[in-house]
Parts: sequence; C-alpha cells; structure tokens
Amino acid sequence: MVTQLFWIIPVASIVALVFAWYFFKSMMKSSEGTDKMKEIAQYVRDGAMAYLSRQYKVVGIVFAVLFVILAILAYMGVQNPFVPIAFLTGGFFSGLCGFLGMKTATFASARTAQGASKSLNKGLKVAFRSGAVMGLVVVGFGLLDISLWYLLLTKVVYTAEHMASGFSALGLTFVHAGMDESEKLIEITATMLTFGMGASTQALFARVGGGIYTKAADVGADLVGKVEAGIPEDDPRNPATIADNVGDNVGDVAGMGADLYESYCGSILATAALGAALSVSSGEDMSAKVIAPMLVAAIGILLSILGIFMVRTKEDANAKGLLNSLLIGTGGSSVFILIAIAIMAALNWITWGIFGAVVAGLIAGVIIGQGTEYYTSDGYKPTQGIAKQAQQGPATTIIDGIAVGMYSTWIPVVTIVGGIIAAFGFAGGFNSFGEGVYGIGFAAVGMLSTLGITLATDAFGPIADNAGGNAEMSNLPKEVRERTDALDMLGNTTAATGKGFAIGSAALTAMALMAAYIEEIKIWLKRGLAEGETVLQNSMQFVLDSSTQVGEGVKAVVISEATLKDFTVFYDLSIFNPLLLGGLFIGAMMAFVFCAMTMKAVGRAAGSMVDEVRRQFRDIPGILEGTGKPDFARCVAISTKGAQQEMMLPSLLAIAVPIIVGLVFGVAGVIGLLMGGLTTGFTLAVFLNNSGGAWDNAKKYIEKGNYGGKGSEAHHAGVVGDTVGDPFKDTSGPSLNILIKLMTMVSVVMSGLTVAYALF
Amino acid sequence: MVTQLFWIIPVASIVALVFAWYFFKSMMKSSEGTDKMKEIAQYVRDGAMAYLSRQYKVVGIVFAVLFVILAILAYMGVQNPFVPIAFLTGGFFSGLCGFLGMKTATFASARTAQGASKSLNKGLKVAFRSGAVMGLVVVGFGLLDISLWYLLLTKVVYTAEHMASGFSALGLTFVHAGMDESEKLIEITATMLTFGMGASTQALFARVGGGIYTKAADVGADLVGKVEAGIPEDDPRNPATIADNVGDNVGDVAGMGADLYESYCGSILATAALGAALSVSSGEDMSAKVIAPMLVAAIGILLSILGIFMVRTKEDANAKGLLNSLLIGTGGSSVFILIAIAIMAALNWITWGIFGAVVAGLIAGVIIGQGTEYYTSDGYKPTQGIAKQAQQGPATTIIDGIAVGMYSTWIPVVTIVGGIIAAFGFAGGFNSFGEGVYGIGFAAVGMLSTLGITLATDAFGPIADNAGGNAEMSNLPKEVRERTDALDMLGNTTAATGKGFAIGSAALTAMALMAAYIEEIKIWLKRGLAEGETVLQNSMQFVLDSSTQVGEGVKAVVISEATLKDFTVFYDLSIFNPLLLGGLFIGAMMAFVFCAMTMKAVGRAAGSMVDEVRRQFRDIPGILEGTGKPDFARCVAISTKGAQQEMMLPSLLAIAVPIIVGLVFGVAGVIGLLMGGLTTGFTLAVFLNNSGGAWDNAKKYIEKGNYGGKGSEAHHAGVVGDTVGDPFKDTSGPSLNILIKLMTMVSVVMSGLTVAYALF
Repeated sequence: MVTQLFWIIPVASIVALVFAWYFFKSMMKSSEGTDKMKEIAQYVRDGAMAYLSRQYKVVGIVFAVLFVILAILAYMGVQNPFVPIAFLTGGFFSGLCGFLGMKTATFASARTAQGASKSLNKGLKVAFRSGAVMGLVVVGFGLLDISLWYLLLTKVVYTAEHMASGFSALGLTFVHAGMDESEKLIEITATMLTFGMGASTQALFARVGGGIYTKAADVGADLVGKVEAGIPEDDPRNPATIADNVGDNVGDVAGMGADLYESYCGSILATAALGAALSVSSGEDMSAKVIAPMLVAAIGILLSILGIFMVRTKEDANAKGLLNSLLIGTGGSSVFILIAIAIMAALNWITWGIFGAVVAGLIAGVIIGQGTEYYTSDGYKPTQGIAKQAQQGPATTIIDGIAVGMYSTWIPVVTIVGGIIAAFGFAGGFNSFGEGVYGIGFAAVGMLSTLGITLATDAFGPIADNAGGNAEMSNLPKEVRERTDALDMLGNTTAATGKGFAIGSAALTAMALMAAYIEEIKIWLKRGLAEGETVLQNSMQFVLDSSTQVGEGVKAVVISEATLKDFTVFYDLSIFNPLLLGGLFIGAMMAFVFCAMTMKAVGRAAGSMVDEVRRQFRDIPGILEGTGKPDFARCVAISTKGAQQEMMLPSLLAIAVPIIVGLVFGVAGVIGLLMGGLTTGFTLAVFLNNSGGAWDNAKKYIEKGNYGGKGSEAHHAGVVGDTVGDPFKDTSGPSLNILIKLMTMVSVVMSGLTVAYALF
Repeated sequence: MVTQLFWIIPVASIVALVFAWYFFKSMMKSSEGTDKMKEIAQYVRDGAMAYLSRQYKVVGIVFAVLFVILAILAYMGVQNPFVPIAFLTGGFFSGLCGFLGMKTATFASARTAQGASKSLNKGLKVAFRSGAVMGLVVVGFGLLDISLWYLLLTKVVYTAEHMASGFSALGLTFVHAGMDESEKLIEITATMLTFGMGASTQALFARVGGGIYTKAADVGADLVGKVEAGIPEDDPRNPATIADNVGDNVGDVAGMGADLYESYCGSILATAALGAALSVSSGEDMSAKVIAPMLVAAIGILLSILGIFMVRTKEDANAKGLLNSLLIGTGGSSVFILIAIAIMAALNWITWGIFGAVVAGLIAGVIIGQGTEYYTSDGYKPTQGIAKQAQQGPATTIIDGIAVGMYSTWIPVVTIVGGIIAAFGFAGGFNSFGEGVYGIGFAAVGMLSTLGITLATDAFGPIADNAGGNAEMSNLPKEVRERTDALDMLGNTTAATGKGFAIGSAALTAMALMAAYIEEIKIWLKRGLAEGETVLQNSMQFVLDSSTQVGEGVKAVVISEATLKDFTVFYDLSIFNPLLLGGLFIGAMMAFVFCAMTMKAVGRAAGSMVDEVRRQFRDIPGILEGTGKPDFARCVAISTKGAQQEMMLPSLLAIAVPIIVGLVFGVAGVIGLLMGGLTTGFTLAVFLNNSGGAWDNAKKYIEKGNYGGKGSEAHHAGVVGDTVGDPFKDTSGPSLNILIKLMTMVSVVMSGLTVAYALF
C-alpha cells in the first residue's frame, strides 16, 4: 500500500516550492518604501551576496577536492561510484536553499519596515511569509532531492544490467550483477545516505563561516561604536552597521537553514536506510519501510503550509499576542500532523509503535523549546538572577551566567534521553533492536516534520531585526521603530527556541545516522567477505545484529578461535573496548577544541573589524557628525575575509578527525568518537546557547530600567556578559550541531575506507 | 614469591608514618617567630580547626545515615555485612589524614616565614617537609588501612567457619560456608574495594566544602578589600584575610589530600579486585596478582621518602632553581621507581607487560603536568595572549581565557587515551580483556606511586602562601616577603601541575573501578543464580566475559530464547543499548549541573562574605586606619557556615544519581552514566582548571608591568578574569575529580541493590 503512495512525496516537495515561489512573489509586490530605505536595503543585499559568492568560491574548492578524493576511493573499490555525485548534489541543493533564503530575506527587510509603517499585522505578515520562503525551500528541495535520487536509483540504475558492465569497463567496482532485491535496496539507501555529507559540508561552512562573520561584525560594531564612540545601535554613522545587518542574514538565515536542511535530509535518509535493513531481515514488502519516513515528511510539508496560513494577528496585538499567533501556526501544524500520522497508523501504513515514536519526537521538540525559553527569557528567575548579579560587577555576571547555562542542560538532556528510550521502546526495540533504532529515526523525522513552519519562525527573526535596522537608518518615525522592535523581540524568542530545536533534532538525527553507519559497515564487511570466510561473517552478524535466529528457541553464535581475536578487538562495540573508549574521550575533547577554535576565530576577526572602524572614525572627516560617509563595503569585506580564513581550520578538523580515528582506531573507535561528540557536544551546545541567550536578555532586562537601567554599573556589567555571550550563542554553540552531524556523515561515507584499511 | 613479600606493605606504610612524625617533630622544633607572627598563625589555626570540626560534624551525620542504609542493605542480603564497617574506616582514615595534614600546615606557615627570614633554603625546607607530612600521612594511612583489612579478612574472617554461622544467626546473608578459595579471594577484594566509598564521601565534602569555603573567602576579601577599599592583599585591616588564609588550608591541603587519598586507595583496591578475578580464571598462585599493586605502591612509598630528602636548594637560587630542586625530588623518585619495577619484572614478580603499564601511567602523569604548565604559565603564549586581550576589556579577556581552557583539553585527553590503550595493550589486553584492564589499573597505581612526594609539592603551595600572608600581616622586612613570594610562585606552579595530576589519576582510577564494578556485578549475579538457571549464567558469562572457553577451537555461547530479552536489555554493554546511551547523556549532564551548583554555591557564600566585610568596614570604628580591630572570627564563621550549607545539595546529588540510575536503567545505564561522567567530567575539569590557572597568571603577568601594569585598564580586566577563574579552578574543576570517582564508588557499593531491584 505504502509503496503505491510514493507519488505523494515528489508532489509535496513541488507544492512546497510552488508556495515558496508564491510567498516570494507576493512579498516582492509590496512596496520597499522610501529611496533611503531602498538604498540601505541594497547595501545589505550587496554585502550579503558578496559574502555568499565568496563563501561559495571557497566551498567550491573544498567540494572539488573532496569530490576527487571520493572518486579515487570509488576507483579503489572502497566507495560506491555514485557517492561522489550524490555528494555534489547534496551540497548544491543546500547551497541553493541558502542562496534563495538569503535573497528573500534581504529583499524582505525594507518591505517589512514599510509594512510596519502601515500596521503591525502587515509587518508581521511580510516578515513571516518571507521567512516561510526559507522554510519551504529547505523542505521542498530536501525532499525533492531525496525522491529524485530514489527514483533514479530504483528505476534506472539498479534495474539496468548494462550499468554494471559500464562501470566495470571504467575500472570501478560496482557490485550489481547478481544482487538480489534486498541487497539492491540496501545499496540504494546507503548511497542516498551519503549525499547528506554534501549537505553537511555545505552546512559546516555556512554555520561556522556565518557565525564568525556575524559576531565579528557585531562585536566590532558594538565595541567601537556603542562603547567607544557612544552612538546607538544600528546608527548609520557606524561603518560596521551594514556588516552587522549582513551578518544576521548570513548567520541566522543561511547558516540556520543549511543546518536544518542537513538534519532534515539526514534524518529521513538514515531512517530509510534503517528501514531497508529491517525489511530485508523481516522479508516484508521491502520498500514500504524505506518510503514511510519520506511519506511522513511529505505530509508534514503539506500541513506546515496550512499552518503558515493560520499565522495572523490583530492590529492592536501586544508581544504576547504576537507570540500566540505564531504558536497557533506551529502548534496547529503539530496537531494536524499528529492526527495525520494517527490516521496512517489506523490505515496500517505504519505501525502504532512508529506513531508513538513520532509523537515522542514531536513532544521532545516542544519540551526542549519551552525549557530553553525558561532559562533564557527575562520573564523567569534564572535570567533575572544574572541581572541582579550584574550589580556586583562583570565577574559575578559571568560566573552566574555560566552557572545558569550549565544548569539548564538538564531539561534538554533528560528530554532527549526520554525521547530516545520512548521512541526505541514504542517501536519495539526491547524485542528487536533494529525496530527500536528505526523508531529513533522516526522520532527525528517527527520532530522535523514541522520544519516548514518552524524554520519560517526562525528566519522571521533576522528579517525583523534587519527591518528595525533599516527603519533606524532611514529615520522612520518612532512608532515604526516600536513596531519593528516588537517584531524583533518576538524574533529573539523564536531564535532561542529555534536553537533548542536545532540541537535537539541534530542529536536525534545523529543517533539515527550512527545506527545507519553500522548498516554501512555491514555492507562493506559482507562485500569484503563475499570471497569466503563465512565464519567471520557469522561473528559479525552476531556483533552487529544480536537477533540472528539460529535454532528453535535458541540463539547461537559460533566463532572460530582464529577469528575471535579480530572480532573482539575490531568490532566489539562494548563500552569497555579501549579503542571505543579512546574514541569517546576524543569525541568529548573535539567538542571543546572545536568551540575553542571558533571562539578564537571570532576574537581575531572582531579584532580586525575594531581596527577598521577605529581607522574610519579617525581618517574619514565628518563621519561622526553625519556629514562624512562611512565606507560600509570595506567593513563587509573585512568580515567576509575574516570569516573565510577562520572557518578553514575548524572545518578541516571536523572532516579529518573521523577519518583519522577510523584509520587508526577502527570501527569501534569511530563509534566512540561519534557518541562522545554527541553526548558532550549536545550538552556543551545547550550550555553555550543558553548562557549566551540569558546574558543577552539579562542585559535587555536591565535596559528596561531594572537595577539602575541603561548606563548604570549593572548595565555595564550586563554588556560584558552579552559580549561574552555573542560567540557562545551565535558561533560556537550552533556550530556544534554541525560538528556532531558532520563527523557522523563523514564516518558513514568513509566506512568502506575504514573497513579496508583500519590499523586496528 | 610475591605472596611471601606481603610484609613489605605494612612495613612501608609504617615507615611512611614514622617519617611523617619525624618531619612534623623537626618542623615543630624550629621557631615560630615573633609574638605577632604567632598570634596570626593562631588565628588561622583556630579558624581551620573550627571549620574542620564543623565539617566533621556534618560529615558525621551523613556517615551515620549512610551506615544505617548500608546496614539495612546488608540485612536485606544485597550487601556484604562487612561493607558498612569498611565504609566507616575508609571515611575515618581519610578524615584523619585531612586533620593531621591541616594541623601540620597551620603550624608550619609562621615557621616558614621565620625560616625565610633567615634564608630561602631554610624557608623551602620547612615548607616542603611540612608538605611531606601530608604526603606521607596519606600514603601511610592509605596503605595501612588496606593491609590491615587484607590481613583481617584473609587470616581471620574467611578462614574461621564460625563467622558464617554467627552472621547467619544475626539474620545476615553471608555466603561463606562452602566457598572455595577463589570465591573467597574475590569476596575479600570486593569487600575491601567498598571501603573506598567512605574515603570518597569524606573527600567529596572536603573538596566541595573546602572549595566553596576558600573561594567565598577569597572573592569576598578581594571584592570589598582590594576593589572597593583599595587595600592590598593579605592586609591585616581586611576582616576576611584570616578566612582567606584558612581557606588555603581547608581547600588546598585538606581537600586535595582527601581527593588523592581516595584515588590512591581506589586505584590499589580496584587493581587488586581485577587481579583476583584474573587469578581465579587463570588458576595461578591466586593472591599474587592481588598483592602486586600493593607491593608497587609500597616500594613507591619508600622511594618517595628518598626523593623528599633530595629536595634542597642553594642559598642564591632563583625561581628556576627552586623549581629544579623540586623536580629533582619528584623526577628522582620516578626514576627510582622505574628501576625498582624493572627489577621486579626481571625477578618475575610481575610481568614485563605490567611494567609497561606502570611506565605508561608514570609518563602520562608527567605529560599532563607539563601540558598544564604550558597552557597556564605566563612563560608561554596562551596566557600571554589572554593578557594581551585584556587591553580590550573584560569581555575579550573572558572569551580568550575560555578558549584557552577549552583548547588545552587536547593534551590531557590524548595522553589519557594513549595511556589507557598503551597500558591495556602492554598488559596483553588485545589477547585477554581481563589482563588489559588489570594493566589499566596498574597505570593508575604507577601514576600514584610517587604520591608521597607529589602531594608534598602540592601541600607546599598553601603553606608558602600562608607564610606570605603571615609575613605581610606581621610586617616582616621586605626581603622576607620577597622570599616567601618566590616560594609562593613556586607553589602556584606545583598547584597547577598537581591539579593535572589529580584529574589524570582520577580518570585512571575511575576506569579501574568501573572494570571492578563489572566484577562486583558478576558476584551478585552468581549469588542470585546459585539456586538454578545455569542458562542465564552462561549468557551472563558471555556478556561479562567473552573469553569463556566452551569447545576445542570454538567459542560458543548459548542463550535460551526466554532469557534473551532480559540479556539484551539488562546487560548489553554495547554503546547502542539505549539504556546505556541514556546513562551516557545523563553522565555528561551531571558534570555540567554539578559545576553549575558549585559555582552558584560560591556566588552565594561570597555574597554573604561581601555583606559582612562591608558591614565591618562601616560599623567598626577606625578599622581602615588600623586602630580598630576587625572581627576575623565572624568572617571565618560565615565562610564555614556557607560552605557547610552549600555543599549538601551537590553532594547528595552525586550520591543519589548513580543509585537512581541503577534502579531505573539497570547495570547498562550505570555504566553509561559513569562513562559519560568520566569523559565529559574529565574534559570539563581540565577546561575549568586551565582557564582559571591561565587567568590567574595572566593577571600576574600584567602586574609584572606588561600592558600597562597594575592599575591599568588591562589590569582591571585581568582582575575580572581572575575572579571568574577562582571558582573555575579551585571549586568546580577539582570537585569534578570527586564526582567522577564517587559516582563510580557508589555504583560499586550499590551493585547488589542494582542487580536485585533494577526496573529494567
């Protein structure tokens, strides 16, 4: 039954793209306002595009190098020959989403300001629907890429016998002739899975580069403009202002979009791969379990679009009213999806266990979002406590903010643990391990099924922020700025919960990918063993799949003495295997070292920006009086250059370490690395995000007039906290999502290499 | 052969205690200086003892409660009846070491200042040999406790048949009659292992309470005295000065001593337990492998004493000369131990593999110490870089310091991973898992074999620091203060490397304890299965010991279908077991939450101190002119009370969480918890220690006249960094050592409960 519904998947993805196009067009029709507003918007647009084209150039080189490496590996026979191409398409679509989302955002900011000059509702609508373009483009292209590859591989490649001989003629290993249907299905999902590495790599550069860019500009603009020269935020006299506004777009729109594109595709593909492995062992209608996660995602898209149309507010709405209107959209989509999935279960398209797993994922997403809200919003004690500590100076502000961030880790960790165990258990994992991890995959798919609208609420934030900047620089009336401020505050709230959502979904996606990694390893082992040694194959099946049935009522595993040593040391996934344990330690360390690198990078890039802004204030006559014109472009160029230079080292580390660990410590070491990176990276990311968010809002709480208000000692300390928090919450913390997923993706793609050449 | 050498062990421990007594007596003979010096020293002594007696009262209550709980568990049959008593002796000896070490330190400070007024060498000698009292008391009582219990259990309890019936008459389960020799040996080592929980609990309160005390006093003294009132450090007009000096003693002497007492005993006992399990399966001279780690420790003691006598310096020595004289002592001891162990291997008392493992541990300790030195000393780039960033204000100082600390984790992590794998491999772990973990235990024993002298160099620091405070408050001539400053700086260096040593040894000890935990679980499972169900026993043997030999050339494991479910879910130690994975996440979170709690605790306790110091400055007439007398005792009381109140919650958490996780998630969950706590806690502790150390030294580097020197903007920012670093390096970071070890110890002691009542 499910197999016959495959058409829904490409259709849903095209529907998403059509609506994205529609929202884009309707946004473009609205007025961009005065000439001054257009000019400012053009500056930001030029800056953003300059950044993006430069980033794509660097990324292009990296992709070219990786393509060649993957092609060589394919030629060596430790890689499926389609992988290099899949890798490119993953990167291409991810980049395209970033480009389109950012283009839209930069067109929308002045229009949002103009809309807000009419009414709050009009401003909200322009900003939110422009954000929805990003959301729909991501889910649309993501699912389109998946369905195209699935069709290509199932309908063309693996059915045409001549393809195999063609590859053989090229000298490429392509185990095709003689494959049975189940083996083909596993090959197909495994190949598709690896296009996630392209998306991952693109996301890495977008997140890390964007994160460095935005904070270098922000810190540079603040330190010299606000602190030294004493001019307000977004003041047109500050040469770094445009770069700061560009930064919101490249960091929070393009970076966040690429991050979630990767999670979205990764979770669906990993679940499909797990479904393939499961179908083969159980011998059911094989492709049903492969298609099911795509189908859930497709239905999620359609219902997200419905949710987007539900977002509207009254003219006299206050902050709470605005938030409510967004919650109606996201909450409504979630409820619709729950109902739809329940219907699917009732129709027997999926099991009720899978329904339970999807629910677990959806609920986990909500709890993590609310927990983030509690620890970072100034409506609650933790953030207010930081503001209170600010009265005693910057040191106590920092200590308290760090303590709040560290404390806040408990909610997301307990939620993710509960979500994982619930999804595993609902899906029947305590009886069959394979069903359980398939359930965990579905929890990720479930959490991300509302991505179309969730990402819209995320991308909304920087658009509103830019609209405020535009209003300020264009000297629009005070009431307009007040309206954009209301939208901006709403954006800050959605950004905080969005970060919780991003890290939560990254964790579940990484879990599913790791389980899929084991399936990949199995494939390569079987391939290596096709020439003999069935005993070792048995032993592997034992390690990797303990449910192998051997006799009536008895499970038996027979391992020859000669192979036992290899077996124990190479593929023992027990936590006491010292190679796995070593990986675990290195994974924990990687999270810290990666953060250290990105923080240092922000520091250096911000330093160049500080120097440049100081230079302009000194050298350009009349700049502070408003008669001289600041050189915005130069600041944009400095941030761009800084971001490009600084993102290389951490990025290469994230790609190289899993390969090195795989070659030295083998499969067990890789699993340890990924688990260590996941558990420590997740906790560390929550800590950094929430400390940063709490400091930001503690400062704003003081600015509202508490503990002396603006200009007081407490405010001064609060600004220090906020500045420390900037790289925490906008560079290092979010970059950890990518580190976790990319290391897993690289491991998946390099599994053939690991099996063939690992030292241990 | 080795068995007949057992006498060396108690003899070595008594020799250590005799030398401790000798060093104490010879220190007491030297003059305590002027009446003023004696008065100041008396204040510090009174404060320290007041704190200690109060702490022991609180700890006494906790011990009484835990004793009752353990006794109930013993009565329920899920605990060996000797465990409650062993628990008390462990706590008692640990407390005694803290008491004696601190008593010595508080007697030594004025004498060190007096010695320094004669010559640098005399000052060094008094301080160092007083530190050696602490070192020798810890190793002496540690090994004495171990050998007494071993003799009692082997010679009396497990040989006298009537003991068993006596216990049975009391209604206690005591599986004794009919035990064969190997089972007795395992019971003996397992029982002894649990006295480590007493030491752990004592250490927890000493470290956490001491850490909170010392930083509350320090921050309070600095914030009001140095920053607000503008009077120098250690000024007698500051009412918190005495509390600050007391804090050095309770935190750095008693806290560090209890921490390492626990590691010392834990590593020896865990290795002995692993040796027992190994001997039984291999059927050799059974007690040889149990005694071997104690023997290595005993020889280490004797050679450490030799090293202590090698520490002396020339009269005109500079800072480098002083450091060299200490290095000759510690390095000399290490070399002697290496030679001695090589001779043991040559005599076939231990294998060459074990020799390799000991070498790995010793070298790992040295590398971690040197790595710490690089990242925290102002002679190298990282710390100098922080000082440079301080020019741009406190925010960049904090960001850079955090980045340096996070970056610095790579050396200790890579070293520990290398050490674990090397020790495992040398000892033959790639052929036999049991031999491998026995080797890891020996790496811990090897690292700690020089503890007698290493701890002396640690305890030396606070003594020199207090001597400086005494000299300042007693208005001794400038040259005396210069000499004590030279000693103090040396103490800062040894403190930093000492912290690295403490966390490194904690990691290896925890590893060995975890392996021993598995042995404990085996014992309880076997006991539960004595009544039947051999099939399940087989399955367990498979999970827990994959080397079970079943047939010629073939290893087979047979599990009945009925028990498979239990088997997979309950005792699957694969990292993909969701219960284990859940534990892993919770362990990572525990490290962060525990840090958050201890940081918040320092903040609150420091807040009370700030209020009190401000009150005294306001209410006591003439206090700032030097005519009024500050109320030192009240500040001491406030710090004491704050520390006692604040240490309860994190301490209870550390004890309760492993029990709860065990009861809910079972054995796999506990293993995950411990591994997650170990890997994340280790990395986090290194980050916190090194960030704190680097900030401290960056501030001092600025004070030397760099970047504007004292009073400059950079200095102001440096002080903020130093204040943030205080709870990092002296409270939260070091407390993580205890968290890691205590959670493991609690799990070991509660293993019977977990096996009997776990939900999953």
